[in-house]
Amino acid sequence: MKSETKLIARYAETDQMGIIHHSVYPIWFEAARTDFIKLFGLSYSELEQKGIMLPLSGLACHYHKPGHYEDEITVVTTIEKLTAATLTLRYRVYNQCEELLCDGTTTHGWTDLTLKPVNLRHRMPELFAAMRRAAQEEADGNA
Amino acid sequence: MKSETKLIARYAETDQMGIIHHSVYPIWFEAARTDFIKLFGLSYSELEQKGIMLPLSGLACHYHKPGHYEDEITVVTTIEKLTAATLTLRYRVYNQCEELLCDGTTTHGWTDLTLKPVNLRHRMPELFAAMRRAAQEEADGNA
Amino acid sequence: MKSETKLIARYAETDQMGIIHHSVYPIWFEAARTDFIKLFGLSYSELEQKGIMLPLSGLACHYHKPGHYEDEITVVTTIEKLTAATLTLRYRVYNQCEELLCDGTTTHGWTDLTLKPVNLRHRMPELFAAMRRAAQEEADGNA
Amino acid sequence: MKSETKLIARYAETDQMGIIHHSVYPIWFEAARTDFIKLFGLSYSELEQKGIMLPLSGLACHYHKPGHYEDEITVVTTIEKLTAATLTLRYRVYNQCEELLCDGTTTHGWTDLTLKPVNLRHRMPELFAAMRRAAQEEADGNA
Repeated sequence: MKSETKLIARYAETDQMGIIHHSVYPIWFEAARTDFIKLFGLSYSELEQKGIMLPLSGLACHYHKPGHYEDEITVVTTIEKLTAATLTLRYRVYNQCEELLCDGTTTHGWTDLTLKPVNLRHRMPELFAAMRRAAQEEADGNA
Repeated sequence: MKSETKLIARYAETDQMGIIHHSVYPIWFEAARTDFIKLFGLSYSELEQKGIMLPLSGLACHYHKPGHYEDEITVVTTIEKLTAATLTLRYRVYNQCEELLCDGTTTHGWTDLTLKPVNLRHRMPELFAAMRRAAQEEADGNA
Repeated sequence: MKSETKLIARYAETDQMGIIHHSVYPIWFEAARTDFIKLFGLSYSELEQKGIMLPLSGLACHYHKPGHYEDEITVVTTIEKLTAATLTLRYRVYNQCEELLCDGTTTHGWTDLTLKPVNLRHRMPELFAAMRRAAQEEADGNA
Repeated sequence: MKSETKLIARYAETDQMGIIHHSVYPIWFEAARTDFIKLFGLSYSELEQKGIMLPLSGLACHYHKPGHYEDEITVVTTIEKLTAATLTLRYRVYNQCEELLCDGTTTHGWTDLTLKPVNLRHRMPELFAAMRRAAQEEADGNA
């Protein structure tokens, strides 16, 4: 189970090296995360309305090739690890030539609206089960 | 009455033209606004805690010279117009050579936390009176 | 002649008021400008490769309603004014309910890669003529 | 050898969780990197003028506590690892209460202006030697 997010690299996202600034990739990861969560039948906005947030505890990026203005970007998102307390997603960012520009992960805690940890298995058992299946499927696919 | 805000232009704020991207100046205006409000003895955070917000209704920027990475920026902020419902501030952005890079204005409505308009004269009469004096002083200085 | 640009509002584009930060609209205008220029048969990247740049001399935004995370945004771009030295574009930003969130203009100078002014009529007569027609058409449509 | 960079957290850097957006920390790291390099007697702009760039190959962030608007931020930067081909820096981001909000690393390749790798030991032997001493000092301090 994976989502594919399409983006066009913006001029404002370039820097004076003439390439996409490295701080932009975490923002593209986030746009991709929005799409990934929709695979489970609800939007991240709806998740927040149910009192659940996903603040980051960790971020890692590996930069392989520079991105450029007007690149037609695809971000492929998969689940890396799920527990009742945390979620780790993996992102792969490609340009229109299917070159891998950047890959990375984000690790999140499941929290309530005051940023206190919650147990997703108890709080939203169906979402937890569906994500569990996706994580398992991904692990099997990579085996 | 005016505030002076010092900033260093960031690499992430440049674009592939090799200059500071134009969308950065409104963010510098906002950092300057934070300092301007402190002249009146409270921070913008405290203003929000008192239930007052200042969302923008208008923005204008005039770009005179390009800014560059590592420029030592000064933003001079003055009050342009105050009513019980709205506030207009003026910003002048200089580099270390005292060249004017950009000037502009932001117009704001005084609102509550749900973004509904409030009358500042009634809601915070002391702040309103102090800002009124600052606006008058500025108008006199320009006369 | 107008372009329509589709965007999804990003989480990173929100602020602690819970709305899209006002500095984001100029970035959306720019993404829309990229699409508008493509109407004339070349990309902005190609324009830069031909030695032409379009730095901003002015920006104006009017904010009508707050935008929100995950809003499905449409930016409609039209030409407001064209001379051999300058270009003014107009942008209208709508959400998925066709509510106007923001409208604004950007004014640009036609320059070479060193940011020196160029005369577009002489430098790229076909592009100038095509944009002239678009501007005329827009003026007629509004008459 | 370490640099300390002071910043005020900007409103534009918050998100609708009411905290500093995670993509902002890499930008603060970069502002801190600018100051760190100045410890060695030249600015990053001067480095680029000498034909040397430092594009990122890797980024890691660990988020410990949320940052907030108007926080008075200090970023402490130290050298983690230096080779003739790469540089790794470590950043620790504190608020005004000396709470650690985020720490992380960036890994860079030394390149020329076309983003091709260069050997810093050969290209700028004095800078390489000075950084080597700083890295050694840091390693000794941690021993």
